[in-house]
Amino acid sequence: MAKPKKPRRPKAETPKGFRDYFGADVTERKAMLDKIAEVYHRYGFDPLESSAVETLDALGKYLPDVDRPNAGVFAWQEDDGDWLALRYDLTAPLARVAAQFRNDLPTPYRRYAMGPVWRNEKPGPGRFRQFYQCDADTVGAASVAADAEICAMLSDALEAVGIDKGDYIVRVNNRKVLNGVMEVAGVLDPADPDKFEHERGIVLRAIDKLDRLGEDGVRALLGEGRKDESGDFTEGAKLTEAQADVVMGFLRVGIQVNEQAKSRQFTRRHLPNGLKEHFDNLPKGIVGGPMAFVGEADNLLSSSAAELGAWAASQLRDLVKDSEIGNSGVDELEQISDLLAAQGYGPDRIVIDPSVVRGLGYYTGPVFEAELTFEILDEKGRPRQFGSVAGGGRYDDLVKRFTGQAVPATGVSIGVDRLLAALRAKGRAGDSLQGPVIVTVMDRDRMAEYQAMVGELRQAGIRAEVYLGNPKNFGNQLKYADKRNSPIAIIQGTDEAARGVVQIKDLVLGARIAESASLEEWKSQPAQFEAARGEMVAEVKRLLAKEEG
Amino acid sequence: MAKPKKPRRPKAETPKGFRDYFGADVTERKAMLDKIAEVYHRYGFDPLESSAVETLDALGKYLPDVDRPNAGVFAWQEDDGDWLALRYDLTAPLARVAAQFRNDLPTPYRRYAMGPVWRNEKPGPGRFRQFYQCDADTVGAASVAADAEICAMLSDALEAVGIDKGDYIVRVNNRKVLNGVMEVAGVLDPADPDKFEHERGIVLRAIDKLDRLGEDGVRALLGEGRKDESGDFTEGAKLTEAQADVVMGFLRVGIQVNEQAKSRQFTRRHLPNGLKEHFDNLPKGIVGGPMAFVGEADNLLSSSAAELGAWAASQLRDLVKDSEIGNSGVDELEQISDLLAAQGYGPDRIVIDPSVVRGLGYYTGPVFEAELTFEILDEKGRPRQFGSVAGGGRYDDLVKRFTGQAVPATGVSIGVDRLLAALRAKGRAGDSLQGPVIVTVMDRDRMAEYQAMVGELRQAGIRAEVYLGNPKNFGNQLKYADKRNSPIAIIQGTDEAARGVVQIKDLVLGARIAESASLEEWKSQPAQFEAARGEMVAEVKRLLAKEEG
Repeated sequence: MAKPKKPRRPKAETPKGFRDYFGADVTERKAMLDKIAEVYHRYGFDPLESSAVETLDALGKYLPDVDRPNAGVFAWQEDDGDWLALRYDLTAPLARVAAQFRNDLPTPYRRYAMGPVWRNEKPGPGRFRQFYQCDADTVGAASVAADAEICAMLSDALEAVGIDKGDYIVRVNNRKVLNGVMEVAGVLDPADPDKFEHERGIVLRAIDKLDRLGEDGVRALLGEGRKDESGDFTEGAKLTEAQADVVMGFLRVGIQVNEQAKSRQFTRRHLPNGLKEHFDNLPKGIVGGPMAFVGEADNLLSSSAAELGAWAASQLRDLVKDSEIGNSGVDELEQISDLLAAQGYGPDRIVIDPSVVRGLGYYTGPVFEAELTFEILDEKGRPRQFGSVAGGGRYDDLVKRFTGQAVPATGVSIGVDRLLAALRAKGRAGDSLQGPVIVTVMDRDRMAEYQAMVGELRQAGIRAEVYLGNPKNFGNQLKYADKRNSPIAIIQGTDEAARGVVQIKDLVLGARIAESASLEEWKSQPAQFEAARGEMVAEVKRLLAKEEG
Repeated sequence: MAKPKKPRRPKAETPKGFRDYFGADVTERKAMLDKIAEVYHRYGFDPLESSAVETLDALGKYLPDVDRPNAGVFAWQEDDGDWLALRYDLTAPLARVAAQFRNDLPTPYRRYAMGPVWRNEKPGPGRFRQFYQCDADTVGAASVAADAEICAMLSDALEAVGIDKGDYIVRVNNRKVLNGVMEVAGVLDPADPDKFEHERGIVLRAIDKLDRLGEDGVRALLGEGRKDESGDFTEGAKLTEAQADVVMGFLRVGIQVNEQAKSRQFTRRHLPNGLKEHFDNLPKGIVGGPMAFVGEADNLLSSSAAELGAWAASQLRDLVKDSEIGNSGVDELEQISDLLAAQGYGPDRIVIDPSVVRGLGYYTGPVFEAELTFEILDEKGRPRQFGSVAGGGRYDDLVKRFTGQAVPATGVSIGVDRLLAALRAKGRAGDSLQGPVIVTVMDRDRMAEYQAMVGELRQAGIRAEVYLGNPKNFGNQLKYADKRNSPIAIIQGTDEAARGVVQIKDLVLGARIAESASLEEWKSQPAQFEAARGEMVAEVKRLLAKEEG
């Protein structure tokens, strides 16, 4: 009779596009999110943890005339025929919660949420199918004061995690101003909102590429089109010269603001420390400090807030002419500017920037984006800007999907992995996980005594372990200590036990000596000393304090 | 032409069996997990966050001869034909990670993990399809010192979150002792491990029901069977009297241990505070303090550790006779007892209890369970024991699935929701989320000034918001403050602004007065006072400190 086949062994593999986080990966992210949560809490935001699973219906990814759910989400069908799916962001669940619990939640409802989201996309280098998001939103507040608050909070959150003033900038724009400009340029007809949708799409994408293509590139895309270096041709929006001038005039306000903001940050960065503080205090008191409606003024320090605001507002008003929506957008930007100025957020932190578009179609008013402005070296050693780490805006139509009633909402999402990468690049991700003190096992029969030692160390608040592998090979124990990044090893053989002492091995100093010591130095073992058993905890404490100091 | 149908509105509903967590639900759990993580960290455990999604293959839930994955997990098929699934616990992913990264991880590998898991089960009251687990495991340590360490750490973790000594007990058993007893009772043949599997299953389930059925009930199930109150008959294991005596003798050791442990906890609970400490220190020093191998001794305080250990060990050795596996199990329990005693964990915290079975088939050695011993009132007002909040044990075969090589492992899982419920019942779940100070909006045009106020409060570390709803109806603003559990409202109308003052409304005192005040008291408004604008932050601080004190 044939033997039954052995069961096939499963492969030990993280699924494609997913990853595991070990040790410091987990603690550093947690430390960062804890600091952000503290800021959100101070602003009156309450945490919400919605279920990871939603009905596909609620996520709004269901296409009515196909059997299978839309791509982009992980979904499965229940026995009862319903489709469930993993959430792909934290906004769609918020809209569902806000609709479901509308009678119980306070209005406005300020909530923050932190957690994983899932995307059913082709994985690529650095692109994962599960990643963290960290969102804060205000639902039920129509006032732009809610938008201003989100911008201020984003600024505070970035500083709280360790991004210094001057190393980031929050840019604010308003879809309404943009729409006003489009109206004036003749690619938006308020009486027929669907007309020119194709042209507007090209214009928006062109604006979004300003950083990469420069003014000339954008201009080409507004007109006939643009041939890139490889010879590929991208079709343009086919605007006339006059139409394109309107859009470019708008963009140029953004460019000037950016230059001013950067020069201001540059100025700050090169001031001596004492003066930096003085400089930071300027916008609130002396120059008055609204956000940078900055233009012709060469030097922010010499311009009064009122002059700058008036200049910029008049620039934008000129551009939107008598477009109703455009003017209401400028009004809102002015209000946001005033509200932030009242709380002391000057153009070194938050600026109006007409080049901010934000991809998502659902934004209806103010949009914002936080960019890190310091340079890092890329994998080829070239300096490059770190770029965007957070973005958001006002979306007044999301809850309406469920209830039929429009509910104003605004919020921001921080890209957790990108921000953490930035903190690591700046050396601000917090202490990497300290390894434990290792109590080695010289004598297997005396395990209880080693356990007593480790118990005493832990009681004293010291991270410590007994080596629990096979103790036969002492070298393996020290290799283990090395792998764990242990600062100290404790050794007590039969001889030491009889004499009531322990050996304390300073592994940090040991590693340093190993790199450079002569044989004599090595033999003299300055990194290892004997201590009375009763003094062990005190000696370990002393050594750890020394190493930290 | 017929109008196109309006798109159907999706239902705003959490999927069946799932739930959302709001505010304090989130922060209280987080505070508890943070405290547990601190203990795990001190014991040298590193965090691991594996992906929520695993291949179904790796989870081991795939039945080779059916098309669909096994029930119990949420799974879906990828376009390439692979099945993915949400993890149903944190142990299966650990086994996968330990196999996948075996060349990079330290050996032994101590890791903790906290996060949601998903079960595709019929939801019921209080039973959810997504819930938190909090695990700690040591992979690659064959020594029972690893098991002892887990028990000590569990004890420390429970105390760290606010379960007092005397309010919990960690029970330890060993599957090997149980197997030895089974062997002696004639329902386990070491030469043919599959024989009597049916009978053993009944015996294990009977032991597991000791708490509910009592000795007589278990005895009935070991024999012919048992009729319950409703008249339903449960078939028994059909053991002979002599066979059943062996199992009952074993169980009785457990019963005596439990009685001793409880009387010891009772004794401690009724000692004056100063003596409690003295009592706690006894096991370590004076009576020597191994875990409660407690039996004939009437009073733990009067017995020396050596005597107790010797008595209990001899009882168990008598029971397992010359079963090899049984004797090795008793050896291990003795070792665990000694190791814990060396660290000062006496029978008031950790006891040997032969009635602990733990359902899961994969345990191979020591098993443990933490039970809360205080009483709470159930929904009908009847006192009942809180019961089990954590459990675990040694499972030496899980990693083998992947690599073919046996890897010893042991660990514990804390039932996060149950433990949190216990803390709430004890009033130890931490401060509920404090509401923000609300700056009300009396005058919409002066929003910038209100924003400045709230900015100052936040700068001073005070949780604060401006009311961002429609400010027209002032009553709604106070209702909002009430819903947010706000301690204080700030009011500044045109008049107050002109005079440079604000009104500070003490909402906590106000609520108290509202309950009992006469009309005169109400009118005199002792809960509201005026302060200079420049003193606002200081006055709010003073008031908050008073309310906390």
